[in-house]
Order: sequence, then C-alpha cells, then structure tokens
Amino acid sequence: MKSPIPDYLQHVLDKARDNEAGAPAAYIDVLARADTSKLAVALAMVDGNLYSAGDDQVEFSIQSISKAFVYALAIEDAGLPRVLEKIGVEPSGDRFNQLSLERGTNRPMNPMINAGAITAHSLVVAPNATAEARTERILKSLSRLAGRQLHVDEEVYEAELKDADRNMGIGHMLKAAGIITCDPREAVKGYIRQCAINVNVKDLAMMSATLCNAGVHPFSGEQIIPHASVRQVLSVMTTCGMYDAAGDWVSNVGIPAKSGVAGGIIGTLPGQVGIAAFSPKLDERGNSVRGVAICEQLSRDMGLHMMDVSQIARATVQTSVATLVAGEHEPHNPNCQREVLVFKLRGAVRFAGSERLTRALTRELGQPDPKVPGSGAHSQACAIVLSFREVYSLNFIARRLVHEDIERLLAEGRILVVIDPSEVLHWDAEKAKTGKHPKVVENETEARDYIGGIGCQAVSRDQGW
Amino acid sequence: MKSPIPDYLQHVLDKARDNEAGAPAAYIDVLARADTSKLAVALAMVDGNLYSAGDDQVEFSIQSISKAFVYALAIEDAGLPRVLEKIGVEPSGDRFNQLSLERGTNRPMNPMINAGAITAHSLVVAPNATAEARTERILKSLSRLAGRQLHVDEEVYEAELKDADRNMGIGHMLKAAGIITCDPREAVKGYIRQCAINVNVKDLAMMSATLCNAGVHPFSGEQIIPHASVRQVLSVMTTCGMYDAAGDWVSNVGIPAKSGVAGGIIGTLPGQVGIAAFSPKLDERGNSVRGVAICEQLSRDMGLHMMDVSQIARATVQTSVATLVAGEHEPHNPNCQREVLVFKLRGAVRFAGSERLTRALTRELGQPDPKVPGSGAHSQACAIVLSFREVYSLNFIARRLVHEDIERLLAEGRILVVIDPSEVLHWDAEKAKTGKHPKVVENETEARDYIGGIGCQAVSRDQGW
Amino acid sequence: MKSPIPDYLQHVLDKARDNEAGAPAAYIDVLARADTSKLAVALAMVDGNLYSAGDDQVEFSIQSISKAFVYALAIEDAGLPRVLEKIGVEPSGDRFNQLSLERGTNRPMNPMINAGAITAHSLVVAPNATAEARTERILKSLSRLAGRQLHVDEEVYEAELKDADRNMGIGHMLKAAGIITCDPREAVKGYIRQCAINVNVKDLAMMSATLCNAGVHPFSGEQIIPHASVRQVLSVMTTCGMYDAAGDWVSNVGIPAKSGVAGGIIGTLPGQVGIAAFSPKLDERGNSVRGVAICEQLSRDMGLHMMDVSQIARATVQTSVATLVAGEHEPHNPNCQREVLVFKLRGAVRFAGSERLTRALTRELGQPDPKVPGSGAHSQACAIVLSFREVYSLNFIARRLVHEDIERLLAEGRILVVIDPSEVLHWDAEKAKTGKHPKVVENETEARDYIGGIGCQAVSRDQGW
Amino acid sequence: MKSPIPDYLQHVLDKARDNEAGAPAAYIDVLARADTSKLAVALAMVDGNLYSAGDDQVEFSIQSISKAFVYALAIEDAGLPRVLEKIGVEPSGDRFNQLSLERGTNRPMNPMINAGAITAHSLVVAPNATAEARTERILKSLSRLAGRQLHVDEEVYEAELKDADRNMGIGHMLKAAGIITCDPREAVKGYIRQCAINVNVKDLAMMSATLCNAGVHPFSGEQIIPHASVRQVLSVMTTCGMYDAAGDWVSNVGIPAKSGVAGGIIGTLPGQVGIAAFSPKLDERGNSVRGVAICEQLSRDMGLHMMDVSQIARATVQTSVATLVAGEHEPHNPNCQREVLVFKLRGAVRFAGSERLTRALTRELGQPDPKVPGSGAHSQACAIVLSFREVYSLNFIARRLVHEDIERLLAEGRILVVIDPSEVLHWDAEKAKTGKHPKVVENETEARDYIGGIGCQAVSRDQGW
Repeated sequence: MKSPIPDYLQHVLDKARDNEAGAPAAYIDVLARADTSKLAVALAMVDGNLYSAGDDQVEFSIQSISKAFVYALAIEDAGLPRVLEKIGVEPSGDRFNQLSLERGTNRPMNPMINAGAITAHSLVVAPNATAEARTERILKSLSRLAGRQLHVDEEVYEAELKDADRNMGIGHMLKAAGIITCDPREAVKGYIRQCAINVNVKDLAMMSATLCNAGVHPFSGEQIIPHASVRQVLSVMTTCGMYDAAGDWVSNVGIPAKSGVAGGIIGTLPGQVGIAAFSPKLDERGNSVRGVAICEQLSRDMGLHMMDVSQIARATVQTSVATLVAGEHEPHNPNCQREVLVFKLRGAVRFAGSERLTRALTRELGQPDPKVPGSGAHSQACAIVLSFREVYSLNFIARRLVHEDIERLLAEGRILVVIDPSEVLHWDAEKAKTGKHPKVVENETEARDYIGGIGCQAVSRDQGW
Repeated sequence: MKSPIPDYLQHVLDKARDNEAGAPAAYIDVLARADTSKLAVALAMVDGNLYSAGDDQVEFSIQSISKAFVYALAIEDAGLPRVLEKIGVEPSGDRFNQLSLERGTNRPMNPMINAGAITAHSLVVAPNATAEARTERILKSLSRLAGRQLHVDEEVYEAELKDADRNMGIGHMLKAAGIITCDPREAVKGYIRQCAINVNVKDLAMMSATLCNAGVHPFSGEQIIPHASVRQVLSVMTTCGMYDAAGDWVSNVGIPAKSGVAGGIIGTLPGQVGIAAFSPKLDERGNSVRGVAICEQLSRDMGLHMMDVSQIARATVQTSVATLVAGEHEPHNPNCQREVLVFKLRGAVRFAGSERLTRALTRELGQPDPKVPGSGAHSQACAIVLSFREVYSLNFIARRLVHEDIERLLAEGRILVVIDPSEVLHWDAEKAKTGKHPKVVENETEARDYIGGIGCQAVSRDQGW
Repeated sequence: MKSPIPDYLQHVLDKARDNEAGAPAAYIDVLARADTSKLAVALAMVDGNLYSAGDDQVEFSIQSISKAFVYALAIEDAGLPRVLEKIGVEPSGDRFNQLSLERGTNRPMNPMINAGAITAHSLVVAPNATAEARTERILKSLSRLAGRQLHVDEEVYEAELKDADRNMGIGHMLKAAGIITCDPREAVKGYIRQCAINVNVKDLAMMSATLCNAGVHPFSGEQIIPHASVRQVLSVMTTCGMYDAAGDWVSNVGIPAKSGVAGGIIGTLPGQVGIAAFSPKLDERGNSVRGVAICEQLSRDMGLHMMDVSQIARATVQTSVATLVAGEHEPHNPNCQREVLVFKLRGAVRFAGSERLTRALTRELGQPDPKVPGSGAHSQACAIVLSFREVYSLNFIARRLVHEDIERLLAEGRILVVIDPSEVLHWDAEKAKTGKHPKVVENETEARDYIGGIGCQAVSRDQGW
Repeated sequence: MKSPIPDYLQHVLDKARDNEAGAPAAYIDVLARADTSKLAVALAMVDGNLYSAGDDQVEFSIQSISKAFVYALAIEDAGLPRVLEKIGVEPSGDRFNQLSLERGTNRPMNPMINAGAITAHSLVVAPNATAEARTERILKSLSRLAGRQLHVDEEVYEAELKDADRNMGIGHMLKAAGIITCDPREAVKGYIRQCAINVNVKDLAMMSATLCNAGVHPFSGEQIIPHASVRQVLSVMTTCGMYDAAGDWVSNVGIPAKSGVAGGIIGTLPGQVGIAAFSPKLDERGNSVRGVAICEQLSRDMGLHMMDVSQIARATVQTSVATLVAGEHEPHNPNCQREVLVFKLRGAVRFAGSERLTRALTRELGQPDPKVPGSGAHSQACAIVLSFREVYSLNFIARRLVHEDIERLLAEGRILVVIDPSEVLHWDAEKAKTGKHPKVVENETEARDYIGGIGCQAVSRDQGW
C-alpha cells in the first residue's frame, strides 16, 4: 500500500497554487528576484517521520522564522527573568518593523517584532560576547534543529546589510533605551546574519517538530530547547507570531505559527505535528500568501485548532470485580467480601482521568452514600488492583492524585497491587508518607499470582482482567 | 476511601486566604459592602462531577462573566458572520470600560469589554426584540447552564442603573456608530440586568464545564451552546478574557478565563475541567485578587497550560502477525504468505495516531524499500485486521486518513476485517469510492471466525490478537 | 466716490463660487437639503462699520461657531480656573465628534470639540441651573453680540435631537467621568438648542468684531465679553478652532477662526476686523469649502497672518531742541543751557515705542558716554517737554516705563511739561514715588506759556514744536 | 537720566532667582556639571538696542534653540515646498526625543523635535553636500545673526557624540523612511555639532531680534533670513517651540519661543523685541525653570500676548476742510464748492486704517445717503489732499485699497494731491488703470502751492493743515 499523505499534501499544494495574489519582498533585490513559482510543504511528526511535497529541496533564507528559535536561545542563555525584563510578550498591533517600545519599561513589545528580535539576539551567549560568538551559536543551534549543517546566504546578508537603516535605527534606539548593552551595530549585523541562514521546508518542519516535541529533537532524541522555553516560545508565537491581529489568528487558525519575509512559514501543533510551507509571494502584512492558505487548509482539514473541544477525554477507567474462589487459606480480613476489585486506566491520563479513578475508588470502597446508588458496595473487597498497563503517560497532577489515592488505600490497610510495566507511576518509595507500599508487578498474571500467594485465588469474571 | 480532591481544594483556599490585597468594587454601594471574608472554589468535570470548598453556597452577581455566555447566545441567534461584523476579536489593551472602537469598522474591539458586551446583548433574540425578551432568554439560558433557576439581584440591578452613565454613554455611541440598532437605553438596561444575575461558584463551575464539554451540559447531555460557538468563545476568552495583557495571560496561565467585578472568576480547560473561584477583593485591573491566585495555583498544580507539551502522543499502534495453519481450503491467493496482519490502535486518535497506522500499513504491505529495513516483508499477507476496540475517539482528519487507507487496501484486493464495536470509524458504505467494503465485526473471535470461514485459520502468536 | 470694498468682496465671492467641491452636512435631512448655491461674506470693523456681499440675508444655524461664544460665557459664569479644571486647551488631533478626554484629568481636550462644548454649555449660568435658564442666557447673549434678536430654528433643533446619539453618548461619558454634574440629557439638549440658533453672515461678522474689539460691542460700546475671556477664546480658536491640523492652520492662515457644520465660518483679526463667510458645502473635515477659500483669500490679500512681521514699529519718537531767548528772568539753574528739549511720541505706543523715548532721554540728558557720539549733549537743558498729543494708545508696559522716566527726571530736579490732551498717560498723583509731578497741559501753546512763565521763553527751531 | 530698563531686568532676575526647582540636563557630564547659579536675561530691540542683566557674558551651548534658525536655513536652501514635504508643522504631543513620524507621509511631526531638526539639518546647503559644508554654513549664519564669530564647544560636541544612540537611531530611521537621503551618521554628527555652538544671552537676543525684524539684522541691516521664512519659523515656534502643550503655551504666554537643554531660551515678539534668558536648571519637559519664569514675567509685564486685543487701532484718519478764497482764476468746475478736503492718516496703516480713509472719502464725496447724516456734504469739493506725512508704514492691503480710492477719485475727475515724503504709497504710474495720476508732493506748502497754482487758494481752517 502507498501512503495517502503525500497525495494529500500534493492536493493541498495544487489548491494553493491557484492563488496568484501578492508579490515577493521588494526591499532588497535578491528577494525581489525570487522564483515565485516555487511552492512546497512539509509535515514532521514528533517521532521524526517526514512528509513533503513540491519544491522541498529549494532553499530560501529563514528570515523572521529565526526569531522564535533565537528567543528560545536567549531564554536558555540569559534566563527567562532577564529576558522578560528586556522583552515583553504582548501583541503590538503595529507592523513588524515598528519600534513599539512599551511605555515605562522601554521593552520591545514582543520578541517577534524586529526590536524584540534584535534584543533577543543580543542576549544570546552573554552580554559581552562577540558578534561572531553569537552568530556561531545560532547557526550551530539551528543546524542541530534542522538535523543538517545550515549555511548563511552571503548574498542575502550583504544585501540586507546595505539596506539596514531601519534596523540600525532600532538598534541605536534600543541602546539609548538601555535595553541592549552591546554595540548596537554589531547586534544588528548579527541579527541580519541570523535571518540570512538558508533552509528548505523539510528543515523548517523538523525545527517546528522539535517545538511540538517539548524541545526534544525527533530523530536525535536530544533536548535541544529546554522544556520551559518551549512553552514560552509557543505562547508568544500564538499571540504575536503572525504580527498584528492576534485575536483574529487565535480565532481562525488557533495554532502557534511564525512567518518569514522570504516566503517561509511554520506552524506547530503541540504534541502532534510540525508544519512548514514556502512560497515567495507575500500579502500586505508580509506573510506568504500561499503559505497562509496552506496553513489554514491544514488547520481546517486536520482539526488543529487548540480550542476545538470536539475530543472530550472520556471513559478512561474501567472497573471490574473478580470473585475469589475459597482456597485453603482464608483471607486475613474476616469481613472479606472475597472480591478483588480491578481498576484499569488507559491512554494519556491527565487530571480528568485520575479524577475518574479517584471517584471510582471512592464510590466502590468508601462508605455507602444514600445519594449515590451502589456506593460502598465493595468496601470490604479482599484486594485492589490498579492497572496502568495501557496508560502511556500520566501528567504531574494525575500522578500526584494517584499517589494520594494509593497512600489513602494503604493507610486503610488494603492489599494493593499495581500493574505498571512502563513505570508511568514513578512511585517513589522514599516519599511515601505512610511508609507502606503497593506491590508493583508487570502484568495481570503476576498480579493474580501475588494475590493468590497471600491466600486468595481470584477468578476473572471479566475480559479486562 | 475518601477522595483527596476536596482536601486539595481546601488547601488551595487556605493558601489564597493569606493574600489580603485589593478592595471590593467601590462604584456602587451594594458591591462595596460585600463581605470580603467570603472565599470559595469549585471544579466541575466534563461528566458533571462537582467538587467545591469554602463558601460555595454564597451568591454574588455574575457581572462580566456573563459576557462570555451572552456572546455565545449572540452567535447562536444572529450568526457568527453578523456578530463578527459588529464585534471584533482583538485584545484592546484598554480598560474594560473604555469605548475602544476599531478604526474604520467602528466595531468594539472584542466582546469582553463593555462596548462589545452591550453589542452582544443587543444581538440576542433578534434586532427588534423587546428588552424583556432578551433578558428572559439570557436568564433562561444561564439557568440551564447552571442547572438550576437563577434570579436577578434587584438591589444590584437598581444600584447599577443609577450609576450607569458610562454604559449609557457607550450605548449611545454604539447607536451613533451604527453598531447597535435598537434603543440604546434598553440595550444598556438589559445588559445591566444580565450582569445582576446571582450565582455561586458551583453554578459557575457547571457553566464553565459546559464550555469545556463542547457546549454539552455535563448532566443533562443537552447541547446548550452550539459546538462552533464554543470554539469562538474560548478563543476570545483566551486573548481578551482577563482584560489587558493578553500575551502575559497566555504566557503565564494559558487557559481561557473570564472574571467579574463582584469577585467571581471562571477558567475552562477544553475537554477537561471547568473552574470557578470567588472572593470580593479586586486588583487594580478589576480581577479578584484571590480568584486570580487560585486560578494560577490550579493551573500550576494541574498542568493546565495549553502550550505545555509535556504530553506527547506516543505509540498508539501495535502491529502483530499471525501465521495461518494450513487447513482444508487453501487461501484464494496463490502467493499468499499464510499470514494475517493485525493492526491495533488505542486511545484518542488524532492525526498523529492515524499517521502511525498509515505508516505501519505502508511499511508492512508496500513495496520493499532498501532504505527502510524490513519494509514490504508482509506484502503478500493473507488478510489484514484493523482493530479499533480500544479507540475511544477518532477525530475528523484521523477518520479521513483511515478511510483512505481502507479504500487503498480494498483497491489492492486485500481481505480486510475491521473490529469496531463502538463504531468510531463511521464507515459510510454509500461513500466508498471503490464500491468495496471491509468486513466489520465486534471482536477478535468474530474476526478469526470470518477469516477462517473464507478458507484460512489463523493462530494468534500474540496476546493482542 | 463709491467704496471699493463691496466690489472687492463681490470679487472674492465670484472667485470662491468656482469651487464646486464638497457636500452639505448629510447627517440630518434639514441640513442635507440646504440650498448649496447660497454664498455670502461680511466684514465688520471694530467700530461697527459693516461690509457684506452675496446672500447676506440668508439665515442658517450657527452650529459649532456657538462654541467660541459659549466658552466665553462659561468663563464669565464659572470663572477661568474652574473652566480650565473641566476643559483643556490642547488641539486633539481627533475629529470634532470624538470623545478625546485627556488622560489623568478626564478633561475634554478643548472647548471646540463636542465634548468640550457640551461641558462649556453645562458651566453657563450655574451648576444647578435649569436647561431653560442656560439656553435663555445663551440666546440673549448671542442676540446682543449680533445686535438683533436671534431665534432657534426649531426644525433643525428637532432633527438634531432625533439623531443625537453620539452627543448623548458624550454627555453620559462626561457625567461618568465627573466632568459635568447636571443631568447629561439636559446638557446635551441645551447644547443642541444652542447650535440651532439661526444667524446670517452679518450677525456673525458683528459677533466676531466684538472679539476683535476686546469684547466691546462695536455699536453699543457695551462690554459683552470680559477682556480676559477674549484672550482665552482667541487663543483656543487659534489652536483648536479649525479642528485638527492646528500647526497647519497657524502656518497658513494665522488667525483665530471657527466653523460650523451648516456652512458658516468666522475669522477674527484682533484689533482689526471680524470676518464671516457662508456656503453650505463642507470638506471632509466639516469646514465650508468656499468659506475656507474665502478666509484664505482674505488672509492673503489683507495680510492678516499674525506672524507676518512686515510691519516693524519704527521711529515713533521725534526729538527737537528749542533755544531760549534770554528774557527778564534768568532761568533758576545757573548751568542752564537755555534749551528746551521736546520729545514727541506718536501712534500706538507699546514697549518698543516707550523704549525709544527712554533711550532718547538717556542719551540726551544722561552723562556723556564716549561710545555713544553726542550723548549727554543737553544734560543741562532748561526744561523738558514730553508730547503725547499724537499718541492714541499707551499699553501697560509703555505707560509703566514712561512713568518711571518721569519719576527719574523729576528726581533730578528737571522742569518737566507733559502734553497729554487725551490723558493716555494715566498719571496717578497718588502713586508718585517722589511726591513730585510734571506740569500736564493740553497743547504746545500752553507748554510754551508755562515754560515762559517760569522765566524762560523758548523759540521753536523745529516744525514739530 | 539713567534708563530704568536695566533696573527692571535686574529686578526680574532677582525674582526668578528664588525659584530653586529643577536640575541641569543629566545625560552628559559636561552639562550636568553646569554652574547652576548662573542667571542672565537680555532684550534686543528691532533697531539693535540691547539691554541685559546678570551673567550676560557666560557662554553655554545653543542646543535646540539652533533648530529654529536651521529650519530657516533649510527653507532658504531647499525651498519651503520641499521642506514641507519632509517635515510637518503639527505639535506632536510627544517628548522632543521621540521619533514622532506622521502616518502616511513618514514626515517628522515638526522641526522642533529632534527627528525634524536632523531632517532640517540635512536639507541645509544641498542634498549631496558634505557634513563640513553644512556645519560651516550653519556656524557662519548663526555668527552673522549673533553679530560676532561663534565657536563650537568641542567638549560638549565630543560628549554628545559619545551618547548619541537615540539621535543615531532617529537618523537611521529617517534614512529608512526616505526622509533624509544623505548618510544618516553624518547628518546626526552635523546636527550634534550645530547644537554645540556656544552663545551668551546677548547673542541669543540679537538672533531673536532678527526674527522680530522680519529677518533683517538690526545692526547690519542685512536680510539674513528671507521674509517668508520668518513667518514660517515663527508659526512653528508658536505651536511647537516649547515641546508638548501647544495650546497651553499659546493661552498662557502667547509668543513664539524656543528653548535649549543647556538652559537657554528665546522669545520673539514680532515687530517688537527679542528676548533671551539663561539658567541651567531644567523642568521635567527640558525647559529652563528660571528661563520660563523670566519669559512669563516679561510677557505679563510687557503685554506681549499676541491675542491681547487691548490695543484697538483707532482714529487714524483726520479729516479737515479748507475754504478757498476766491482768486483771479476761478476753479475749472462750475459747481465747485470752493473747498479743499484734506484727509490725513497716521501711524502704521493696515486694512482697518485704510478702510477708515475709504469710508471718510465715501461719506464726504459720495452721494448723500439719508441714513448717514452729513453724507455727501462735500461732494463738489474743489480739490482733495491725502496726507501720508505721518504714516510710517502701509501694508499690502492698505496700499491696495488706497490705490483703488485714488483710481476712483481720478476717474471722477477730481483734483488730487498726495503728500507722501517717505514714499509709503508706492504709486506705480505704469499700473494706473485710468492712465491718470495724482500730484505727489513732499509737504503741505507744496500742496497749497500746487492747488493755488491751478486757480485756487486755500486757507487752512485747521491746525492739521
């Protein structure tokens, strides 16, 4: 069988190609001369699988897309508090090349406008770093993200440098405002150099997928961007990535994104997929016309909008009861109901999932409550099994809540067996408040054997056990 | 066992109580006199399970929190295009009581500032509706969301009406700008009445949970807010719900929220949980000091930030191969490898999950590819089984991709069995392009029987089958 | 001889008539229906002489031109400090119907935008005055300025009232901001009524001439507007009278002015002439197209620009020396040079003129100064005559300086005769520091007689004496 | 006698000295170290007479006061249209060092903010001029205005250059916006150099007096600034000279002014007097605290406010009638009333004055009008004499009107004699429409002789004749 995904991407490109609007960036000749027939798209999965279509080998300068990644580097090198002191996170409502300093603090409004991006650049490595050290660090980091050695397009760099008055103006203003402390001319030159790094859509998709993947490179497994920075970068891309009209973008597309003036654009759906598109003709806001159209098409087709709540986390807890066969050894509890209660979770468990488990435990094992029919029915169960075999992740709050449940069950003197082959539970023996621990096993057979070994023999009445 | 969740909420309240900052709204006496010692929190799960702590029976006026729900009503009654024509979606950067009309269109910047909220109010029911019809519709709708009959606090209503000059001013301005078409005094009175509806934190949590639950009320199962409106309301709450500082809120808290001047506040985590808090003292932006603190605490503890990508969708496809035992009847395909390939998905499957299935199908059943080790190894498999037994949801794009996979497999003449007891696949026999259909069964036994019945007998070599 | 001024005005009208641009105000039907062929101009001299041309009998509503005069009334009734506390004096850069409240104070930016004009209206009479008392006061005052009984155009009033949402909005906002304290609906109604007063160009020219004439009505001689208010009103008309583009107006036209939406416009050249024009078609700023053209033409032709310094105050002091004929009685001073020095001023004497006199006195009567040729030549003159016969005004500083000169001359024991038939000198015997006084006479003959009488006989050697 | 003016200035200084508020400019060390006890004031009359008091020899850098004069140079060198294309004339409402570019045109809002001043600097000499050529031209021109060779304070220049980031930023921005076309670094250096020129208060007063004197240097009589530029410079000083609060300044002080950050300030009263003050401590707007106080004191004492209409132009026309003695030769007109009408004007005649003459001529010589008592009484006068002997100036419109009167009188066949010893009438024989001319003479005797010579003999009945 041949995968339908490349066919789908080809279809999306064909549709976008009809849109003839826009014009390539005109401010420097080397961009104005771009071949406007070029068109490409790429998707990178969080495990590094890559799909692409169209002119996916064609290189173009990364331009403003670099701002997102250099912001991440600034956070890594200078620390988030210092970065927030120097650069705001508010949409400016102004064009990307406006100064847009915040009243009072003088901070550039956000790191996606040029003033903020030049400031972010100046925070890479160290305040007293040389321009070379900064650009080397950035080139190396972007190359790691792309998974191959990238290069600066020297022709683009030279051309941008010749026409750099606005950015030079911004640089001097930032110095005067006390926002950057190095030589403003060097910061601007370095920023222009960072923007002149050449990429293709496959590079961009991989870079975006690393953001999707909590900063871990899909192929190399390397943590390239610290986890905390990723959240910050994605937040800012959401509200400021596509320049003005933050609310419009959140309402209509609903994913973090960033575009560049050479026609590139990335979109990132946290935890799912990194998108990249390329087409040189820009709209009046400086975003690639076809790139935006592709982005919207993918968002619509693929249901990427973050506020789209059609997928409600449902029924992730399955409860079953197994009756014990009376064996030689009686259970140690005289009131024992000769039952084993099995609670089975599955999927990615967050608060809602762990709350369901807690509720099920409370209902079955708690005191009978006249308002809740059937509550307390199994309060004298012989043993309890919690199965996490089909859970592939437990988030912080879910784990905390499950730990609390376990502590409470143990405190009540319950026999408790946990099936956790992937060790998603992170049970820390050291931290147990009661000093008691559940029996942790790999699978159902081991659970049965253990319970049987302590004087019970359970017979499954249910497929799930 | 007793649930630890109420204990946790109590702990959060105790911590918030230390914060003595702020003062109750001073502009009308009835709010200024509020008992500032009152403090409450509630959580409502998407299935309606409710936790609360503190003064959860104390009623207060809903105030601006009503804006989110009346915006939803406006979308329902007037249609999204007309609402967007009248009210923007951009954060205004101004205070809530500023006029903030957009240049050119005259639209209020967003529905969370008073100008936008009055406009939304005027779009409820119909342009020529009476003020009574509008307030009745709103009161009825909010009561359905809360799950009980709510009432207007007439004392608050009268007091606000006496001091309504700013809102009256806004109302007349909106009329003059052609944004509202009814009598502006009636629209403002109705808006003030909507703000004076009394609620407690449990009501608010249920209302929020309905937004979390794609507009379906957790208890009644009723679709109170249309699905499409929910996405729009949550988008606007994200960027404009907490007044100015949109980027700050997205970076730090990262969930849709809305506050009211009587001290209430709601937060909604799509698909997960609705939060409500109450404490009368406000900060200088008009948000409840302790309410914000509670919100931040819950967001931090519970990992609610939407950009937090710690939960990566992983390995949701399991592939197994069963070898056929030669029986009386030979398989119809002379090149048959006497193998049955079983592909099993689980959890909530979105694009990333279906992409994995597609990739697995392509690798196992496609042409051998020298770059992909082991590819094409089972290209002559006797039959293919796709199991959706452990899938609890398939989103639009995932379903589309699986359908395409099925079409392609059938077009290649494969024997294809689908295990789909919950009918998540929505296979539509009418739409099948090839005119061919897979065999759809309820469980593994039926699948085995079917395959055996057409001349094969498969023996499971794997637990999953 | 027939005056050429009416011919000139007719010529200006004929030229303006060619400009077909603009359209009458469209927001109410009664203005939209205006006869756009009507065209008129009038000039009123500060002594009440009036020239007019075109449709000088056609009446139209005064509209915003009333703002200047009601601002003057507000200053008179509430006092300038209170008015400044409520209304600023800065150009707003916004359109006339914008709210434009100043940050911090909430004051409307200036009294020429609607918000400021409604506030000014509310300050007339007294804070607790009835709307009737205010409109009656305003109608009476405008009638006195026009020199005839004016009337409200009830059709215009009713029509504006029906479409008063923007102004009602502004009124409520002003109340909410604590700027107006009365019922905002009454203030707005009164303001609309004030704008609906009918005038013709001759009325407006007379009203403007009163401003030119320091608030004194040219005909009646009545001080209708207090002197101090006039300066304030003219200052604000200069910077805010023609809405936005304050600097542009000051650079190009350079006179205080105010326009109204019915097509009227006034210009006032302090101390010289009041101008009024009328033509219903407006430009996009709401000013009469032909009215502005007429204004510009008159300014250009008549050299009205206040910064036009082509007229330098020159030689206004004439010094002459008369030799005494030795008579019976010798002068009392043994060193007497037997000379009488006569200093003659003329015209409107301000600081520059009195400085010339002071300088001449210092040079002729002071100590010889080697750097100033001829200085001190007449230090022993027998008597000094200061003639103010040809002076028609002495301003404050000039008078103060001349008084100081007289004091110093008397302190030196000089015989001093002042010719001051019009009493421009305001010599106050009470205030004289030395206790000495000059001899004040009516003309040269009396001066000669007086000097002769005290023992000298002067023979004129100069025509001026 | 000793002039009281220096005493007055000393008194003003003593009063200002009490104000201890403010601090010297802190941004560069050389200004921060200024001796804050220094205090000086100077007045220069339009004929060059100079008064000063205090530290009138102390030099300080001219700073922003140079902006007014360099704006004049830009207008001279590039032409007003090109200057207006590059620099606006609106008050910006922002601080002097804000970029404040106008939307749409990109023009700096006005030439008194740094962006506008740098642009004005770049327009001096020629677009492709060297920085040296520009600074040389400016230094030479300011020296001519001061009446002595000025010098750049190299220490100030070097210090400002080291801290020039904000201005460098502005320079680059202006280049990027297409407003300046030369190397922005050179323009900024030149601008900084222009600001570092040293002056004392006497220099500044002379420079200001040249503006007062229509651009003609009081001493040298040289036209240093073209007449048209002066009007433009003074207009802009009025609305933008003291930074923000244009309306406030016009209301309170009412004269064109400009201040510099070293503590200097100039005020110019067109046609009257140039003022300069110096004291290093600045208020928060960057204006000299004591300098502003001195300026306000002088404005108040000296009645400088341009809108102060206390001086109404009155009675400047004197009409007298002389009866002819019957001589040998009868007058040529049989209806001759044997009267000579003499009309005598005096002072600076503008429109109002010439209108009085016109009115007098019309009344005496026109047709009898029942509404005007005594009108037409002398319609058959034998001859008419217009005396301009006491007129020291006639402005454009006044001259035009008098010419028209003369044409009309000649057209009626009147005998017309004009006494115009100073040739204020500018009668141009070429342009006379009728081809007829009045008899122009030097004085009354010649007028009498002429009239007698043509067959009349007039006897004066009036002192004025």
